[in-house]
Amino acid sequence: VVVQPEQPSAAPATGRPKGTLNVARWGEILQAAGEVFDEKGYQAARIEDIAARVGILKGSLYYYIESKEDLLFALSENAHTTGLTAIVEDPELAAADAPIRLGAFVLRWMEVLAANPPYATVTDREVGALSGERYELVMAKRNELHGFVRGLIEQGIADGDFDPATDPGVATNSVFQMLNATSGWFRPTGRLTIPDIAEWYRAFVLRGLAAPSA
Amino acid sequence: VVVQPEQPSAAPATGRPKGTLNVARWGEILQAAGEVFDEKGYQAARIEDIAARVGILKGSLYYYIESKEDLLFALSENAHTTGLTAIVEDPELAAADAPIRLGAFVLRWMEVLAANPPYATVTDREVGALSGERYELVMAKRNELHGFVRGLIEQGIADGDFDPATDPGVATNSVFQMLNATSGWFRPTGRLTIPDIAEWYRAFVLRGLAAPSA
Repeated sequence: VVVQPEQPSAAPATGRPKGTLNVARWGEILQAAGEVFDEKGYQAARIEDIAARVGILKGSLYYYIESKEDLLFALSENAHTTGLTAIVEDPELAAADAPIRLGAFVLRWMEVLAANPPYATVTDREVGALSGERYELVMAKRNELHGFVRGLIEQGIADGDFDPATDPGVATNSVFQMLNATSGWFRPTGRLTIPDIAEWYRAFVLRGLAAPSA
Repeated sequence: VVVQPEQPSAAPATGRPKGTLNVARWGEILQAAGEVFDEKGYQAARIEDIAARVGILKGSLYYYIESKEDLLFALSENAHTTGLTAIVEDPELAAADAPIRLGAFVLRWMEVLAANPPYATVTDREVGALSGERYELVMAKRNELHGFVRGLIEQGIADGDFDPATDPGVATNSVFQMLNATSGWFRPTGRLTIPDIAEWYRAFVLRGLAAPSA
């Protein structure tokens, strides 16, 4: 969480908390909000529920936010900022072929997902609840993430590594949906670890996209 | 919707509406419930909202149900009963190799998804809101569906058609998550139709699972 205590209080549209505040407490509030949104759904969640989970009064919570939507926006911003770290490549990797780059992205993305809190998927599910400008800001980050993968698939098709019958948009959506759904069914007590599953995703995706002659 | 007007009113656990009723109206109620659950989330949805969408009084709705959960259960039952039609194979197909059978299932499953109402995914998302016995009943149907696909993947591994490094459970989850997510991003105005996407899924899944030597 990037906290800017000098931020004027009239800037809720950026998702930053208003005024001077307690950074650790703000982190607790966001975690509680994520948990309550995940358990009850965003619309059913009440500010009182979130305050009670932190152990503060509802009025104290309003020192940090102006509305419930501020919490959803801050959670979305955090999730997408973390997510975008997965598109960073070192120069050697950036110069490699598309299958190498896409395979490495799959592993990096699964690391990001594994490091996310359990409630992280709520920001995807509830993104439609964000209003105008905030929705656009979050979708711009999501589009940047998807555009990176789509670019790799387009590169692979152009180089003859991937099946030219592939629609890059459909393939991009499919890869993200499959990977992002992992937290919904993965059990840490199972036979496989997240790195095991990530390796299988890499093999499955690269074989699935491969040009028939390759 | 299977309506049994002779059903005694003390049988809400089966998900069937209590008492004698208007079949067309029950269909309208379920559609309204699906839409409201999808828009607001199950927990935030109110019986009043559903009744208002149908154009009846809240009290009239209670002629059909005893609780909001009855509506979620009926929607879940309908969705899974429809879904299970996709695991029916004619004898010739049932005797075929795993890649043929799995490819055919992918196409049938996409037909089921395309025929579903727009709110259908809500029953997957909210399944955890069903209580005890009802949750078990719905999960048993889901397990039957997943077990069918898992069996095909196990058959393919045993026959040497699919990569022996594949975990059948992980592969089954991955296929369902990828296919089921289609309604979340598909736009009918796009370049591709659902049958186009279904064909691509079939090719992607079969190539992705293929044994390295095959």
